[in-house]
Amino acid sequence: MENIDYKGLFPNWDMLTAEQQQLLLDSCYEKKYNKGQQVHGGNESCLGMLVVKSGLLRAYIVSENGKEITLYRLFPGDICLLSASCVLRNISFEIFIEASKDSEICIIPTDTFQQLSESSIVFSNYITELMAARFSDVMWILEQTLFTRFDSRLASFLIEESNIEQSKTLSITHEEIAMHIGSAREVVTKMLKYFTQEGIVELSRGKIHILDMRKLYGLVQ
Amino acid sequence: MENIDYKGLFPNWDMLTAEQQQLLLDSCYEKKYNKGQQVHGGNESCLGMLVVKSGLLRAYIVSENGKEITLYRLFPGDICLLSASCVLRNISFEIFIEASKDSEICIIPTDTFQQLSESSIVFSNYITELMAARFSDVMWILEQTLFTRFDSRLASFLIEESNIEQSKTLSITHEEIAMHIGSAREVVTKMLKYFTQEGIVELSRGKIHILDMRKLYGLVQ
Repeated sequence: MENIDYKGLFPNWDMLTAEQQQLLLDSCYEKKYNKGQQVHGGNESCLGMLVVKSGLLRAYIVSENGKEITLYRLFPGDICLLSASCVLRNISFEIFIEASKDSEICIIPTDTFQQLSESSIVFSNYITELMAARFSDVMWILEQTLFTRFDSRLASFLIEESNIEQSKTLSITHEEIAMHIGSAREVVTKMLKYFTQEGIVELSRGKIHILDMRKLYGLVQ
Repeated sequence: MENIDYKGLFPNWDMLTAEQQQLLLDSCYEKKYNKGQQVHGGNESCLGMLVVKSGLLRAYIVSENGKEITLYRLFPGDICLLSASCVLRNISFEIFIEASKDSEICIIPTDTFQQLSESSIVFSNYITELMAARFSDVMWILEQTLFTRFDSRLASFLIEESNIEQSKTLSITHEEIAMHIGSAREVVTKMLKYFTQEGIVELSRGKIHILDMRKLYGLVQ
């Protein structure tokens, strides 16, 4: 597994013992996921920590009646901790992770994870930091949901999506947007119609064209 | 500080070295807060980890226009980690903590906190567990906010409050309830009127009397 730069991933890689470094290098393995494939949650077992090599993952939660909201997305170089939730004490919620694009992932198995947590204070502190980062992501979602107007949340999402796709034309359905931001399709459609009237976007079959990025940013602030 | 049972608080107290145990015992100090007093956030500086000896603390977030939602409450024996947020890496949100009742609190100062995080793997793993517990609390709030009907959320809150106060008569305003569950006063008032019609509660000035606990539990499920 030469092509993973653990030095870049673990800020204190050099503070791990040679033995611990070797354990990481020996035990991790690579897996490929196709776009739309489930990586964690549901029927998938608890893999361990994931390091995204290429592609894009989406972490989300689902209600009993199938409503979804995206918690965070994982880009190349990002590490997913909650996919090791089975070995994390006190995590009482279940998240789902799916591949939003074809993705290559390195998996650090749960037993390696546990061995390192129990033997390396550097690793243990790093886990705390990773958890704090995801905790902060979720707090942002909570604040958005509770305190932010829907037009502003939709504008944020379109900007984020445009950045990810590096394009002003987004191939995404109203249903998919609703699932990302925890809303209903009807509500998304209504607001997109308003955005159209304001000359901010233009809609065509299965596509949204952003016409006025400045107005979109204006809605976020 | 003889009267804090650290053995009960830190599951692995015995796995700390005698030196680390002594550091904890020597550096922590006690502080009293009156009901309504701010403990953390706003103008209060970053105290460190808090151990609740008596009373009740409330952790919450506030929007720009003053809307609030309660994230979790801390009872005697509970430990608050996020009051040490200034020494936690990657925590990018601000929470507020206030005393909901007159409270006695033991404070583990931030430098002790940092020394122990860096020297004890037992302590570091414990911090991860504490963070995971608060993270789970917040995920529950997020799921409630997104996925749960308002009548059910209000019913949950009344049951919880009744348990805390050990009484079926709650001295709380509609405004305060709205702040706890992240809603608006009008919405709370309207739902309480519906609960009254259904014979679930009876309202009088500044008080809510729970008449039918079974119906209330029925709304939660």
